[in-house]
Amino acid sequence: MTNRFLAAILALALPFPALAQRAAPPVPAPVDPAVAALRDAALKDDVAYDIVEGLTTEVGQRLAGTEAEARARTWAVAKLKALGFQNVRSEPYRMPVWVRGEERAEIVSPFPQKLVLTALGNSGATPDAGLTAEVAVFKTFGEFMNAPDSAIKGRIVYVGNAMAPTQDGSSYGQSGVARFVGPGIAARRGALAMVIRSIGTDTHRTPHTGVTNFPEGVKPIPAAALSVPDAKLIEAMAARGKPLTMKLVLTPRQIGERESGNVIAEVPGSDPAAGIVLVGGHLDSWDLATGAIDDASGVAITAAAAKRIMDSGRRPRRTIRVVWFGSEEVGGFGARDYARRHGAERHVVAAESDLGADRVWRFQSSLEGSAAPVAGRLASALVPLGIVHTDGGGGDGADIGPIVATGVAGIDFNQSALRYFDTHHTADDTLDRVDPEMLRQNVAAWTTMLAIVADAPEEIGPVARKSH
Amino acid sequence: MTNRFLAAILALALPFPALAQRAAPPVPAPVDPAVAALRDAALKDDVAYDIVEGLTTEVGQRLAGTEAEARARTWAVAKLKALGFQNVRSEPYRMPVWVRGEERAEIVSPFPQKLVLTALGNSGATPDAGLTAEVAVFKTFGEFMNAPDSAIKGRIVYVGNAMAPTQDGSSYGQSGVARFVGPGIAARRGALAMVIRSIGTDTHRTPHTGVTNFPEGVKPIPAAALSVPDAKLIEAMAARGKPLTMKLVLTPRQIGERESGNVIAEVPGSDPAAGIVLVGGHLDSWDLATGAIDDASGVAITAAAAKRIMDSGRRPRRTIRVVWFGSEEVGGFGARDYARRHGAERHVVAAESDLGADRVWRFQSSLEGSAAPVAGRLASALVPLGIVHTDGGGGDGADIGPIVATGVAGIDFNQSALRYFDTHHTADDTLDRVDPEMLRQNVAAWTTMLAIVADAPEEIGPVARKSH
Repeated sequence: MTNRFLAAILALALPFPALAQRAAPPVPAPVDPAVAALRDAALKDDVAYDIVEGLTTEVGQRLAGTEAEARARTWAVAKLKALGFQNVRSEPYRMPVWVRGEERAEIVSPFPQKLVLTALGNSGATPDAGLTAEVAVFKTFGEFMNAPDSAIKGRIVYVGNAMAPTQDGSSYGQSGVARFVGPGIAARRGALAMVIRSIGTDTHRTPHTGVTNFPEGVKPIPAAALSVPDAKLIEAMAARGKPLTMKLVLTPRQIGERESGNVIAEVPGSDPAAGIVLVGGHLDSWDLATGAIDDASGVAITAAAAKRIMDSGRRPRRTIRVVWFGSEEVGGFGARDYARRHGAERHVVAAESDLGADRVWRFQSSLEGSAAPVAGRLASALVPLGIVHTDGGGGDGADIGPIVATGVAGIDFNQSALRYFDTHHTADDTLDRVDPEMLRQNVAAWTTMLAIVADAPEEIGPVARKSH
Repeated sequence: MTNRFLAAILALALPFPALAQRAAPPVPAPVDPAVAALRDAALKDDVAYDIVEGLTTEVGQRLAGTEAEARARTWAVAKLKALGFQNVRSEPYRMPVWVRGEERAEIVSPFPQKLVLTALGNSGATPDAGLTAEVAVFKTFGEFMNAPDSAIKGRIVYVGNAMAPTQDGSSYGQSGVARFVGPGIAARRGALAMVIRSIGTDTHRTPHTGVTNFPEGVKPIPAAALSVPDAKLIEAMAARGKPLTMKLVLTPRQIGERESGNVIAEVPGSDPAAGIVLVGGHLDSWDLATGAIDDASGVAITAAAAKRIMDSGRRPRRTIRVVWFGSEEVGGFGARDYARRHGAERHVVAAESDLGADRVWRFQSSLEGSAAPVAGRLASALVPLGIVHTDGGGGDGADIGPIVATGVAGIDFNQSALRYFDTHHTADDTLDRVDPEMLRQNVAAWTTMLAIVADAPEEIGPVARKSH
């Protein structure tokens, strides 16, 4: 054994003053045996899978603001009551609703082929008989932005901007810009329509939908995502050097204001002054599939974990509030309605599950000051689940965003995103994508968190507001 | 070292009389260095991928008997001429043509959900407005066959009969019976329509089409395949115990006789009396995708291998004839037309590639009598490609079937079928499914075979006729 190794081991074993000054204590916090027992029992959970299976089988797709989402709320209220939660209710609000129409496309020349695509949320419509025009092909968003308007005006614009899988899903933001704002920019620059390569990491003929946003005053143009193989085909055709002509038929429409809503359930705490621990996911889904990973899994994981605390025989100090948000996919109307109704109540922690159901590999939190030891205890308790703790983050998520913005601490459990964007927002988001064992690991992580956070004797929050 | 090990090693090394009597020689046949050089050079082949890429990009889907298949023949003739083949021509014939129409389905009650399905070839049509009826759910073909007619009459029949992946693809036959003959039987028993679980091994929303056959005198009913997740959904709904009602819209139609054709190209041999070595695949594809693995790969592999012999600088003894058959998918009209026109010519070997482009793991042949040593030399030469030789087989394949049936020896290269039925006959059969390295291993195997077989000094065939 070299001296260097010996020194390293001693550094880990002994509370040297230099190490004691670090924010995270070098000696792991002890794990409460009751918490460990709840955590380990959750690895046998069947409640979460039962919720995902039931919602996807008995309701299926539940596009925000439609009667399908209303059926999902009815199902959710009945399910949460049957699971034994208190104060179960649906809180309605109204929102503008966009619905899909026909969607077809083909290359007319020089190589006639049908294409598989799907309209983006908020897409404008072509004439019923379709729109035929030359395609301006850009392999990246940068090429599109740098091209002169003359290359765009009067054309159907294609933008590739391929997405690679990443552990933390951050490539979604990088590639996704083509979808989030591309069509609005193309509209402003005179394009007739825009088709993008799906913002996804698969190679199947299942295009990825998702919202796009047109700036105030810009008339929406038809906007759609091609499946990844179809996008590659366009690029291969373009590489032959002849002009491509595409025919596009997209007939979605805005149908005006409709009712949506959030579904809420609680495990009442023993100390009302200690604040609320808010957990949840979103109940709505895109219309192409049954939304098993986006986000039946999120509502299932958080409710199953809350039920485990409820059924543990010991009332938690803080109220655990489970919120199944409405209309996340199409613009977060549920999140804003929740904050409007409940923002004045004392929330101490908010945590959202909306990245599927694969293994949680990391947690981050914004537990600060007097609440920092809570994060330490959580880190220790999550070690057997293979979850690492890193600095930064905490409070990510569209649905908890408005509440976190008021100074509420956030806790993020990051699932591996390597497979998530294979099926995100596609017709393939079905029950087959959920691995029951991985789902149980999620439930165990959330159960551990709730057991520690809801009962923590420390004061939690408020925290410094962060901008995400 | 034990005596048993020692004895085993000696048995391999020495030509004991007992071993010398076996059909396959225990000492591997030597490998001609010229053959080995051709084989190894083929592992760098780019011609096959170029053919697959070109056909899928510049033509795309090529349903038998349609103008798309005609464009594929035009493309094929030009490509084979450009590659330097002799006697390149298209041989036309006429055939009945079935085309897809609208295809939609939904569960109307008790759990309203849209389903993803695709019509089977030869399916009958529903009224334009659709057909709504109760679903009779059978998880296996056996349950369907054993059910009383009263459970079938007036219903939409669902049959599961799930397929598992197998190395040799044999599960396709076992599960596929539900597709091949199920709708005909259901029609005879009074069913209004039949939907099956796709005969496929994936879990994507990409249903698998394929022909079904209605017996003479039985009026075709609407018949379609649900994607595997949709089939599982039906079964999960049925497990809730309430009657399921389905609405089905399928509007395919028979459009009468149209022109199809085979495309032929040759590497002329030096000895016309030595016979023809026939290799090929099928040029047509299903209409849902670009047919990259089924069967652009097969036509590409066989043509690329033949070109390598042609370009080797040494004229082979036997003529190598490459046939890109028409209309394989819909009933083998091309195969029968070829046998009708060319059955009287002396074919000595026939070999077909129609199981995708994954690694070849095995070869089998019906090389017999004086030609048995040819198989031995082939076995030796294929060892470095990781290809094993087993008894039995030889002459499998729909397109070479009619020629093999006349007493021609067959050679089969079996690709691994473990992934093939994930995308076979689906919208996912695109260029992404082809692994260029595996494709090259195929080309190397076929090049090796042609180098040995086309030049073999032995007489080959005829062989005893086999029934497949």
